[in-house]
Amino acid sequence: MKVKELMDTNFIDVFPDQDIVEVSLKMEKYKKFTTSVVDHERKLVGWVTSIEIIKGLREGKKLIKDIMYTPKDVVSVNENDAARLAVIKASKYKVISIPVLNDEGKVVGVIRSCDIVETLSQLYEIKVSRIFEAMAAELKGVSWNELMEASAVVTKRQTGERITAKKYEKRIKNTTFGEAIWATGGLEKFFVGLIAIGEYVLARKVARARK
Amino acid sequence: MKVKELMDTNFIDVFPDQDIVEVSLKMEKYKKFTTSVVDHERKLVGWVTSIEIIKGLREGKKLIKDIMYTPKDVVSVNENDAARLAVIKASKYKVISIPVLNDEGKVVGVIRSCDIVETLSQLYEIKVSRIFEAMAAELKGVSWNELMEASAVVTKRQTGERITAKKYEKRIKNTTFGEAIWATGGLEKFFVGLIAIGEYVLARKVARARK
Repeated sequence: MKVKELMDTNFIDVFPDQDIVEVSLKMEKYKKFTTSVVDHERKLVGWVTSIEIIKGLREGKKLIKDIMYTPKDVVSVNENDAARLAVIKASKYKVISIPVLNDEGKVVGVIRSCDIVETLSQLYEIKVSRIFEAMAAELKGVSWNELMEASAVVTKRQTGERITAKKYEKRIKNTTFGEAIWATGGLEKFFVGLIAIGEYVLARKVARARK
Repeated sequence: MKVKELMDTNFIDVFPDQDIVEVSLKMEKYKKFTTSVVDHERKLVGWVTSIEIIKGLREGKKLIKDIMYTPKDVVSVNENDAARLAVIKASKYKVISIPVLNDEGKVVGVIRSCDIVETLSQLYEIKVSRIFEAMAAELKGVSWNELMEASAVVTKRQTGERITAKKYEKRIKNTTFGEAIWATGGLEKFFVGLIAIGEYVLARKVARARK
């Protein structure tokens, strides 16, 4: 995934010579805590957050250029960067939004921390059954019911819980990946469980072949 | 994980009768875009973002109570809620921070979207080798070298790439879970690969036992 797939193209920008009061009205209207400052080619020349606006209003400053951060102090990403890079930067610099530039330095979007949260949390919110469906589709010679049975056996072996294949199937329909990770005690344990299911499925195949 | 493990206890709060200018100085000083408004028992009675402060300053309002959101319009969580709930709320309401209350309604912390990004991204940033180490520790009768060999064989089978066990080992030391997901084409495919490794490892065990 690239930055351009994650970014919000619905952003505001302002000019360095614009009046602070006018900009404050624009930020209020669009409910934005930050705005890029651009020149007439839309190249990034500064960055302003609502904190600088407040300070500027209180101190009686007039223009955006009097209160803005200059590009060297602004965290930005390129639209073709890996989305991961934007996530790492947002996390490292603890910023709520990052301007996205194209190769010419023009502002083409904004990465917002709430969009990152949404995207990352979608991973957690995937239903476990979806993961199993993908596995069933790719595992050769293993039926859905066999997979559920193997999973129930592995669960019993690992947790002591007596669970039927039917109950297991019902459970994963209502469980998200995020919940499963917490329930199994961490990402690594979840993986170990999947490997164990793979082992078990093959053991059954071998046993069938011998009969 | 609970909200109280994810929340930031380093937050600011203000009173409804406080002067807007005074509060604006406090938000500036601590670089906060939002603040809880509390009564003298520290119970939540309102919420203010820098957008309301800007509007209040411009319109010549005097006190926080004249510009604040009232509790019914504020998204909050309880300190004992699952951290997932805060993530879901931050994502759904697209807010940059959420006040955290205890059972008495007192503000005890704040969940910030950048902290959520940091926590969620840590999952992505786990080195794949750490996942394999946990698997090796739990898989009975399978050595680290066998696991690497199985992984190399499965990789070759799935992608056509000729890779040695040594090269595979080196690769997972430098690869994060996030990168692996993109490289394998999604979470489900990554899981399918792990299952295939489990299958292969057992096939080898069976073959050894037959010899």
